Amino acid sequence: MTEKKDFHVAVVGATGAVGEQMLKTLEERAFPISTLKVLSSSRSAGKKIQYNGKEYTVEEATPDSFEGVDIALFSAGGSVSKQLAPEAVKRGAIVVDNTSAFRMDENTPLIVPEVNEEDLHNHNGIIANPNCSTIQMVVALEPIRKAFGLNKVIVSTYQAVSGSGQAAIDELQEQTRAILDNQAYTPEVLPVKGDKKHYQIAFNAIPQIDKFVDNGYTFEEMKMINETKKIMHLPSLPVAATCVRLPVGTGHSESVYFEIDQEGINAKDIKALLSTAPGIELQDDPEQQIYPMPADCVGKSEVFVGRIRNDLDEPKGFHMWVVSDNLLKGAAWNSVQIAESLVKLKLVK
Amino acid sequence: MTEKKDFHVAVVGATGAVGEQMLKTLEERAFPISTLKVLSSSRSAGKKIQYNGKEYTVEEATPDSFEGVDIALFSAGGSVSKQLAPEAVKRGAIVVDNTSAFRMDENTPLIVPEVNEEDLHNHNGIIANPNCSTIQMVVALEPIRKAFGLNKVIVSTYQAVSGSGQAAIDELQEQTRAILDNQAYTPEVLPVKGDKKHYQIAFNAIPQIDKFVDNGYTFEEMKMINETKKIMHLPSLPVAATCVRLPVGTGHSESVYFEIDQEGINAKDIKALLSTAPGIELQDDPEQQIYPMPADCVGKSEVFVGRIRNDLDEPKGFHMWVVSDNLLKGAAWNSVQIAESLVKLKLVK
Repeated sequence: MTEKKDFHVAVVGATGAVGEQMLKTLEERAFPISTLKVLSSSRSAGKKIQYNGKEYTVEEATPDSFEGVDIALFSAGGSVSKQLAPEAVKRGAIVVDNTSAFRMDENTPLIVPEVNEEDLHNHNGIIANPNCSTIQMVVALEPIRKAFGLNKVIVSTYQAVSGSGQAAIDELQEQTRAILDNQAYTPEVLPVKGDKKHYQIAFNAIPQIDKFVDNGYTFEEMKMINETKKIMHLPSLPVAATCVRLPVGTGHSESVYFEIDQEGINAKDIKALLSTAPGIELQDDPEQQIYPMPADCVGKSEVFVGRIRNDLDEPKGFHMWVVSDNLLKGAAWNSVQIAESLVKLKLVK
Repeated sequence: MTEKKDFHVAVVGATGAVGEQMLKTLEERAFPISTLKVLSSSRSAGKKIQYNGKEYTVEEATPDSFEGVDIALFSAGGSVSKQLAPEAVKRGAIVVDNTSAFRMDENTPLIVPEVNEEDLHNHNGIIANPNCSTIQMVVALEPIRKAFGLNKVIVSTYQAVSGSGQAAIDELQEQTRAILDNQAYTPEVLPVKGDKKHYQIAFNAIPQIDKFVDNGYTFEEMKMINETKKIMHLPSLPVAATCVRLPVGTGHSESVYFEIDQEGINAKDIKALLSTAPGIELQDDPEQQIYPMPADCVGKSEVFVGRIRNDLDEPKGFHMWVVSDNLLKGAAWNSVQIAESLVKLKLVK
């Protein structure tokens, strides 16, 4: 029997920066949708959005919204997910959650399809989509782990403001113009909407993404550390992260140092490996000044890798530069990919 | 005898971004100048500049310009230094050279006064001022090396465009405005003036500073690696660097991972140490969101250090965030500091 099934799909947080990209990605991928519900907070309810040439009215998300829904994509903040994802599951939906609410829950698989698609089989209704900065890094590291083993990761990030939502994108633009015009501008959004102080992001670099934990790391850094171990099934892999916000609209970059297990491997071997790895586009030709940059990655689904080179002292050490669209592979595209994997593995009833 | 001596000083490259800061710094420090010569290429000769309320006419630098000069500060590019610094020395001047021309020459001391001022005694007429990104890092690392030993350094940089001179500053501003206004703008300066391709810097991050070397590293990265070893007298210290240009006007930032020799040291100990170290201002209170940022460092001579924390896996590993004004401590201020050290150590005739 090769009957093709269409699904009842709900998108929660449909009017946000990621929600918009989710709808666009579902449309581009021609995801098999029979009915679509676009949900949000009461604040955005009533707005109209377009999907596949048809107009939809945004409805307020409530527990009953999920009656009859097969797949619900959540991207409306952690508290919404905590409250409504279990309600959706109770009503028979599978939830793909783009917030941090369930990521480290041991009963919730944390999925990057290129890395651990098979973990989907252990789901209990909710599947977590990892943090944007984690996703692009593990896509680049997984083929390396598979081929040569992986013993250590140290990453410094160069992250775009769109990871903080539409308000941060607006703040960067307005503030940049104000500074160029020598006008005053009071920061209100970055580095963290709900934190005590806000700082200028235009023409600056802020070494804080999300709030601080007691150990001196930020939550963003701890997400990268813990999520990488969970996704890669390497609970004792040493991972260190420093996360920095830049005056870039979209596109996260990462300077990644890693040590492999196998001896005698050269940067050339890593390049050859990544040139055919799933989800990766190698952009690595220093002589031609070819390397990934955030301005070039916007709107593309791949993880771009370049600047791969041997450490000059540690024979098993390497450096690379990893760039991806944080709203796509870092969020919307990975979520839709998870939904596609669920369909492919026949895990949606 | 406490006779105070004044000196015949020349500034070469007086109209450039660094040259301007050198003159400003000499003025602010009330450097003991009896006569001042402001020199440049023939292109800028004839321009007028102000120093201590007096007008000076910029003259074209030629070998004869250095007759009678005691101290010559060079910042007019490597080829000018290669040609004219030996001529200045021949005429009895001591040269403080801010280019890379002589930095790795084994007969030329490479000086950061907080780190290796005593190396000045071995000078042969030319003293090299290190690369901007190197200076701020070694100021932060030296007290740590002294107290606890230093075994490994991995740095990822976040560098401002002013490191590429006034044309790069102008390009960032004009290009940013063009992008905000949806107008076309053809990059012509960054990442490297003389290289084949130029890329957008506004709202972007470019993982190339200076041209590429055969080993896949850039010259900027190799400068950080080699100069750090030379300044710190640690020829076999493992140092790795990834250098990235940001849409920031002035102020370099660095995410530095380092391993010390001594066991049982905590981030608290490193903070206590750096809080009283020369040339450093500690800005490290995550709970109050206090950490260094480039926008805050402009016009200040200190190296700002924050985000100091233990690595979560390596007991001897730590992370820190180091920020400084690349035109001041990274260039002009360090050069003037060298001149002050030469006077203090009675090394100027």
